[in-house]
Amino acid sequence: MSRKVLCFGELLLRLAAPASERLLQSPRLDICVGGAEANVAVSLARLGHEVAMVSVVADNALGQAAVGELRRHGVDTRSVRAGAGRMGLYFLEAGAIQRPSRVLYDRAGSAFARADADSYDWPALLDGVSWLHLSGVTPALGASGAAAAIAAARAARQAGVRICFDGNFRSSLWQEWGVDPAPILHELMSQADVLVADHRDIAVALATQIDPHAADGGLAKAAELAFAAFPNLQRLACTQRQQRNVDHHALSAVLFHRDGSTISTPAYELPSIVDRIGTGDAFAAGLLHGLLREMSDEAGLHFALAAASLKHSVPGDFNLVDAQEIEDLLSGNGFHVRR
Amino acid sequence: MSRKVLCFGELLLRLAAPASERLLQSPRLDICVGGAEANVAVSLARLGHEVAMVSVVADNALGQAAVGELRRHGVDTRSVRAGAGRMGLYFLEAGAIQRPSRVLYDRAGSAFARADADSYDWPALLDGVSWLHLSGVTPALGASGAAAAIAAARAARQAGVRICFDGNFRSSLWQEWGVDPAPILHELMSQADVLVADHRDIAVALATQIDPHAADGGLAKAAELAFAAFPNLQRLACTQRQQRNVDHHALSAVLFHRDGSTISTPAYELPSIVDRIGTGDAFAAGLLHGLLREMSDEAGLHFALAAASLKHSVPGDFNLVDAQEIEDLLSGNGFHVRR
Amino acid sequence: MSRKVLCFGELLLRLAAPASERLLQSPRLDICVGGAEANVAVSLARLGHEVAMVSVVADNALGQAAVGELRRHGVDTRSVRAGAGRMGLYFLEAGAIQRPSRVLYDRAGSAFARADADSYDWPALLDGVSWLHLSGVTPALGASGAAAAIAAARAARQAGVRICFDGNFRSSLWQEWGVDPAPILHELMSQADVLVADHRDIAVALATQIDPHAADGGLAKAAELAFAAFPNLQRLACTQRQQRNVDHHALSAVLFHRDGSTISTPAYELPSIVDRIGTGDAFAAGLLHGLLREMSDEAGLHFALAAASLKHSVPGDFNLVDAQEIEDLLSGNGFHVRR
Amino acid sequence: MSRKVLCFGELLLRLAAPASERLLQSPRLDICVGGAEANVAVSLARLGHEVAMVSVVADNALGQAAVGELRRHGVDTRSVRAGAGRMGLYFLEAGAIQRPSRVLYDRAGSAFARADADSYDWPALLDGVSWLHLSGVTPALGASGAAAAIAAARAARQAGVRICFDGNFRSSLWQEWGVDPAPILHELMSQADVLVADHRDIAVALATQIDPHAADGGLAKAAELAFAAFPNLQRLACTQRQQRNVDHHALSAVLFHRDGSTISTPAYELPSIVDRIGTGDAFAAGLLHGLLREMSDEAGLHFALAAASLKHSVPGDFNLVDAQEIEDLLSGNGFHVRR
Amino acid sequence: MSRKVLCFGELLLRLAAPASERLLQSPRLDICVGGAEANVAVSLARLGHEVAMVSVVADNALGQAAVGELRRHGVDTRSVRAGAGRMGLYFLEAGAIQRPSRVLYDRAGSAFARADADSYDWPALLDGVSWLHLSGVTPALGASGAAAAIAAARAARQAGVRICFDGNFRSSLWQEWGVDPAPILHELMSQADVLVADHRDIAVALATQIDPHAADGGLAKAAELAFAAFPNLQRLACTQRQQRNVDHHALSAVLFHRDGSTISTPAYELPSIVDRIGTGDAFAAGLLHGLLREMSDEAGLHFALAAASLKHSVPGDFNLVDAQEIEDLLSGNGFHVRR
Amino acid sequence: MSRKVLCFGELLLRLAAPASERLLQSPRLDICVGGAEANVAVSLARLGHEVAMVSVVADNALGQAAVGELRRHGVDTRSVRAGAGRMGLYFLEAGAIQRPSRVLYDRAGSAFARADADSYDWPALLDGVSWLHLSGVTPALGASGAAAAIAAARAARQAGVRICFDGNFRSSLWQEWGVDPAPILHELMSQADVLVADHRDIAVALATQIDPHAADGGLAKAAELAFAAFPNLQRLACTQRQQRNVDHHALSAVLFHRDGSTISTPAYELPSIVDRIGTGDAFAAGLLHGLLREMSDEAGLHFALAAASLKHSVPGDFNLVDAQEIEDLLSGNGFHVRR
Repeated sequence: MSRKVLCFGELLLRLAAPASERLLQSPRLDICVGGAEANVAVSLARLGHEVAMVSVVADNALGQAAVGELRRHGVDTRSVRAGAGRMGLYFLEAGAIQRPSRVLYDRAGSAFARADADSYDWPALLDGVSWLHLSGVTPALGASGAAAAIAAARAARQAGVRICFDGNFRSSLWQEWGVDPAPILHELMSQADVLVADHRDIAVALATQIDPHAADGGLAKAAELAFAAFPNLQRLACTQRQQRNVDHHALSAVLFHRDGSTISTPAYELPSIVDRIGTGDAFAAGLLHGLLREMSDEAGLHFALAAASLKHSVPGDFNLVDAQEIEDLLSGNGFHVRR
Repeated sequence: MSRKVLCFGELLLRLAAPASERLLQSPRLDICVGGAEANVAVSLARLGHEVAMVSVVADNALGQAAVGELRRHGVDTRSVRAGAGRMGLYFLEAGAIQRPSRVLYDRAGSAFARADADSYDWPALLDGVSWLHLSGVTPALGASGAAAAIAAARAARQAGVRICFDGNFRSSLWQEWGVDPAPILHELMSQADVLVADHRDIAVALATQIDPHAADGGLAKAAELAFAAFPNLQRLACTQRQQRNVDHHALSAVLFHRDGSTISTPAYELPSIVDRIGTGDAFAAGLLHGLLREMSDEAGLHFALAAASLKHSVPGDFNLVDAQEIEDLLSGNGFHVRR
Repeated sequence: MSRKVLCFGELLLRLAAPASERLLQSPRLDICVGGAEANVAVSLARLGHEVAMVSVVADNALGQAAVGELRRHGVDTRSVRAGAGRMGLYFLEAGAIQRPSRVLYDRAGSAFARADADSYDWPALLDGVSWLHLSGVTPALGASGAAAAIAAARAARQAGVRICFDGNFRSSLWQEWGVDPAPILHELMSQADVLVADHRDIAVALATQIDPHAADGGLAKAAELAFAAFPNLQRLACTQRQQRNVDHHALSAVLFHRDGSTISTPAYELPSIVDRIGTGDAFAAGLLHGLLREMSDEAGLHFALAAASLKHSVPGDFNLVDAQEIEDLLSGNGFHVRR
Repeated sequence: MSRKVLCFGELLLRLAAPASERLLQSPRLDICVGGAEANVAVSLARLGHEVAMVSVVADNALGQAAVGELRRHGVDTRSVRAGAGRMGLYFLEAGAIQRPSRVLYDRAGSAFARADADSYDWPALLDGVSWLHLSGVTPALGASGAAAAIAAARAARQAGVRICFDGNFRSSLWQEWGVDPAPILHELMSQADVLVADHRDIAVALATQIDPHAADGGLAKAAELAFAAFPNLQRLACTQRQQRNVDHHALSAVLFHRDGSTISTPAYELPSIVDRIGTGDAFAAGLLHGLLREMSDEAGLHFALAAASLKHSVPGDFNLVDAQEIEDLLSGNGFHVRR
Repeated sequence: MSRKVLCFGELLLRLAAPASERLLQSPRLDICVGGAEANVAVSLARLGHEVAMVSVVADNALGQAAVGELRRHGVDTRSVRAGAGRMGLYFLEAGAIQRPSRVLYDRAGSAFARADADSYDWPALLDGVSWLHLSGVTPALGASGAAAAIAAARAARQAGVRICFDGNFRSSLWQEWGVDPAPILHELMSQADVLVADHRDIAVALATQIDPHAADGGLAKAAELAFAAFPNLQRLACTQRQQRNVDHHALSAVLFHRDGSTISTPAYELPSIVDRIGTGDAFAAGLLHGLLREMSDEAGLHFALAAASLKHSVPGDFNLVDAQEIEDLLSGNGFHVRR
Repeated sequence: MSRKVLCFGELLLRLAAPASERLLQSPRLDICVGGAEANVAVSLARLGHEVAMVSVVADNALGQAAVGELRRHGVDTRSVRAGAGRMGLYFLEAGAIQRPSRVLYDRAGSAFARADADSYDWPALLDGVSWLHLSGVTPALGASGAAAAIAAARAARQAGVRICFDGNFRSSLWQEWGVDPAPILHELMSQADVLVADHRDIAVALATQIDPHAADGGLAKAAELAFAAFPNLQRLACTQRQQRNVDHHALSAVLFHRDGSTISTPAYELPSIVDRIGTGDAFAAGLLHGLLREMSDEAGLHFALAAASLKHSVPGDFNLVDAQEIEDLLSGNGFHVRR
């Protein structure tokens, strides 16, 4: 049986101030490739899966470099094409202690956002695919992105390809576009087998309110509403994050199954965080890994949380760890130097 | 009498591959501030003049940083305001030997380009100003830029402020906009007292052809046509560049006066060029310096050429040299270590 | 009413070993501009105030660069002049865990220290000024510095300009000079409306002993003595620092008012400190901000403490944060990524 | 018809002193991936060809990184496997002016050198392949390398796959092994359709002497002997290099055809060389490009020389240029900034 | 009385990924010199002792650089000679939070490992020497290393030179060699006056099992067995490390004396570790310092622990601190900035 | 017979702007150790000679680091002591093309300049020494430096130690001190066996004028005067430099012998200079090497010129080349890559 995963979304270039500097404090930026769905693709490739990316990049050296980076990490990039428009960028200023990290999006007019929603041949792209991964970033990029994401999801459902949808609600992008996200997100979540989503993602999609001040942050209520609203949904999972300060978090995870079972984990303490970006994507990739490997939900959730936790120690957007390293953490093999 | 200079144009951020690397060959970029008119402003400030910038930057940390850099070098930035839109960027890959340098513009949708042409109070901005400096980049950015540049020029002419216009023809920007540049450039050149322009700038503005294969590259013909077409024009000057290879040029200059006199200089050999960007702006600033200091045309042209030549040894867009260093080169003080 | 602040003191260049290296462990230094009073000036400029610096720098490229950095951050540097002598330097080796940070002063013979005390035209410099900020570093630099600081304070008092004096007692500098600091500091504190000072500053100025082992570190006693001795003094404030190790502190603050009221704050925990230098100057600037904005003493003290705390996350001497960021910390807006 | 190229050889890690420093002068090294045949593979991939690498790397993070770099640039790495042994390294100290560059090989005991010659399934690897590229480095690595190279060449000849062999004679490697290179190289050259070789390569393979002091450096004689000795040989080509100093060369090329025709080119002057390593591999890749594109020998030789010349401007082992850039140089499109 | 210390062992080059990056994530490595016994030598030299190194390095620029680094820090390197073979390397990837640090040894075939065991003139080398320091790394490098270490120990014993042996058991090296370590280590420990060793070192040497799950990690049992087996042994000491996560440890130490007395210390908390490598060597050097200075065992053990703790704050293999800094930590002089 | 060389002079720290940047253009400096006489010492050590340094450094981490660097390169530093005062610094801005390099001395008040002239025990220091090397920098540092240099020279003459004196006239230092250099330099040159000096050095010492516009730059006249005035003088040598631009020189050398013979060399062309500083010191060291090795004057002069020429390719103050590399250049071994 095929185990191939298809990820659809925008490739971004991340331009980060070095170390703990403020943006442009010194005349240098560190640059790497990111993007929510691309991060999932790279994670899965490094975990040993066959994974392909569908995207559109700028027809210039920046676009080629972004594609090259995905290929370097083992992602099949033959379905990433060049198109009119620029590369989406984001500027990152990593915070410290009490000074929050800042992300300055500069992605308007990107080749991906400008690509025609009809330009993707989904039946061909989905041929031989086991899972399709989408996130809430793509529909927030405008009419083309929304239409393309919906077309992809419908085609996948029709082709028997399972769908993982990561909420990733970005209110600033939706505000920039100026439409009501609810019907679009509702449609996408309706197609999903797995949702990575918190109370806010569900509340927005269902155009309702969920009280986040419940002990569980409103997650049980969100799950209840989600399973009621979305008939294909089997599992809803997310991380829970306590931010002691900017670079010290505690991270746990919870998974709700349509059968009513709920699994939750203890929290990992993560002091001295190296890079917080992409940790949610690492979690989504970990979940997919568990499903592809047919782990129990419990094993899969622990794997996903360990993957997400390890990402906090890796610079850049990508979770550059392999399955053995995650298993080592889960096995409690300790923190001594490996020689 | 006032000697204040006003420069109007876009501030850009330049993102350059380090050393001689290809773009994104390694995961680092060097960043600095530039923009044709800002480069002139910084040059003039370092040459000891009172100079103010009029511009619009993004309302974020990048925009603030760009303004801070101009202020650092002594430019009055009180008339630079923040507006909706992004910062214009350009990616630079410095070439070497036979591999040309590449500039990748990423400036669509910038705060400057999106600023309303009516939002500048030119009479107030020009109060107490001696010279206004504009370039052909601004009108190429779209309807707002073109209208604003023309409004500035007309207000200056009306206020008795002299105008220096640097052709800086960028065909890719005009093509992106999709209008005929001729009437716009014609109007701007009509207001100018001084043009920094070559045969192509004049040919475009006059919607004619000038044969660049004449011994002088068509410059005499261009000057003849320009003085005939533009009644306010007193001087037309430009550099002439022989490119032996990517990092070895020879640079000379020529100036035509309405009275029919022509001044030309011998060429400086410039092997092992450090940074070629901004050398034309350094030339324009040098010319303005000569006019502000009431040098003879001959002295002013030699000063401008020496300024432009020295810029080839300075990394970044700005010509970080002072008047004494330029005078030293003109005096033939030699190349020994200054202790 | 004017809100302009005038800061008087030496600009220093800081030469720091990169990351956590020992000094000269690798052949590279990071360089930035600092100096106690200049740090206050930059903080205030970034908090939105009109602030001017009075100083003397070396007449060379280093001096010009230092002035440019202040201008970059919005400080009016027209009253910083070049003079005979060198730039004061300090070498910094940032410590870690149990290895203390080390500062190696190399400021003897600086242009500032050598400047004639009579060379400042205080009535003109103080024209239109609301507050004068001085610190105990300047009088410690020798007879000229001491005389100039006293002249500035007296002129300010006479002109109705309020005075903020930051004790900043540096015993090594006074020992180098070899005079008794008491009468000089007594005179300066006598002029001050606001003192940023701890028990040692007051004890030295009053040539007395204050037991630091009291529960409050001797602060109440110091305040009592200070209000008795210094008739113009309205407020005395300082931070209290518990150093759990070299890069983990807890920071609180206390303020005493002449009316007998005392305000103290809870402590912020500051693990993984990025840069400890300049945090006291950030506190002084925060206090002045509160006074300029006419905050209550309580609000002002909390603002100053938050400003000082945030400085621990910013590399370099300057507190590169704006008022909104400080307000965010005070409002408990949390540590999540700002997108 | 298939156009796929197969390259067989060792992947190396290059550890270079930064800029013009002596090795370990400062505590930093720049690292990149290289190896003669891998360089050819990357060149061809960037020129748009389908190209696969056959190699063995260390079974560790270094080996994986090397493979990732090839994949990044578009090389099919599915036939690169991990094996027992270390990664081959070389330390590079780039020279300047009169100080020659130095390469310190540290490749003994590498996974590639230790790989069993029988472990490659050549018929399967060569399936669908048009050209096999080998070089004289592989047989110099020891008995396994020599046997594997010969097996590959024989299998290719049998399968109708054409063979390009680059002499790349490294006397230090042969001396380390301690065998007579002549019979091995003779066998390999006997299989080749195209040789990239100079007088020394031919002299060694034929165990004869060729006088390099002839006007053409002994090339005509070498070609005459080669065509006589090697029945399958159709073309012999090489570059000719005049080294004016360490970073200023002049480079030309010559090609001999079995039909007796000889083509030679004028020389490109290459002052201020950025990186001299890998230029011969860039030439070989250019030749193969011409053959794959069915260019005339003259066009192909000029293309190969232009490719090799451009490599001198690119840091690292790989020739990171595309076909358009090479065509631009051949067309004399000039050295101006591309905007 | 002589106080000279002789250290015998291999010099290694350490090639480390910068900051918290994965190996080869970016194309740069930081390089420094290390090696267990060399680390002890440098520590002792910086603590003010006369110390000489006996070793063999590669006969190339890398070997010379390694020797130069030892000399830089005050080690007498006249008995380090160049020999056939390469420099031993190790690649280091520093971990973070839950991601362990990784050391990739690349030292097979080194000049040190290949040096003939008979090539050292121990009587001459030991002339005037007070202590010989060896570690368990040297005998693990193969027959030559083992024979040389044993010869050195026997010659020292004969010459009345006291011997400190640091267990440093590296199972991967012994497995590579493929012999039983027990008789070799037993012989070496039989000669030692001081052992730095934990339960595993002793268990291996005695070919027995020691239960590490005892409250003290099996140390008392190990000491009991060691004193019974090794007649010359006077003291056995080691650190005890609780690894809260990869960069937060707690470190204490214990020392057993043949007279039955046991000394143990409280633990230092070490959050935000800068560099964990070489901390054991810093401990051994601290112990030797105490013995050379004739401190009490208690004072010496505390000194050694403080030295080892401080090493966690210093980048690189060497413990670049002086005795005063260690004394300051022991005196509780606090963590404030030293000005 | 002893071959030991003693060098006496100040150790400086050089703080250089990176690459071709203006000073403080970016917030980073590259730091290395230099000083005219120390440069000679390091050169000689790397050429295989026994060489010791006599100097005084600051009693802090900077002074220790400077000493460590000399020791690293093989110089005996046991006679370098720490004293009151700071480290002398110089800031370097390397020029390019037509922009001259700039050296900003910051050495006033250094520990060396403040050291008591009587604090050196010359008879002991010169014991077993063959040559003493001094330069004109030391006497220019003030009364102590001048007295110490003269005392050293006299003691050497008395002890039969030969003296090499490098003129190194620094007018800015003499002006700062404010005395007439003639009698001091006359006295020093009177003791010298070898002078490295040009027409200006001699003219100053003899308080006369020498026309530099003669074909040989006044050298023959200078030599004639020098041999007449200085009875111990056997040889006077210097380099001649044509500066085509800032980074392209041509360098030749000339040597005059008391016997009337004159030797001159052809010029080396040195385009793309990496580092011009310390090239004169490399020449002096090369001359001393020839004398120590008892080369003919012709061979020695060529060796010295080749050494000086190679220094132009080495970053930093030190000439990090060995004798074999210089011999290779003299032998015309070519510029190919050494593998």
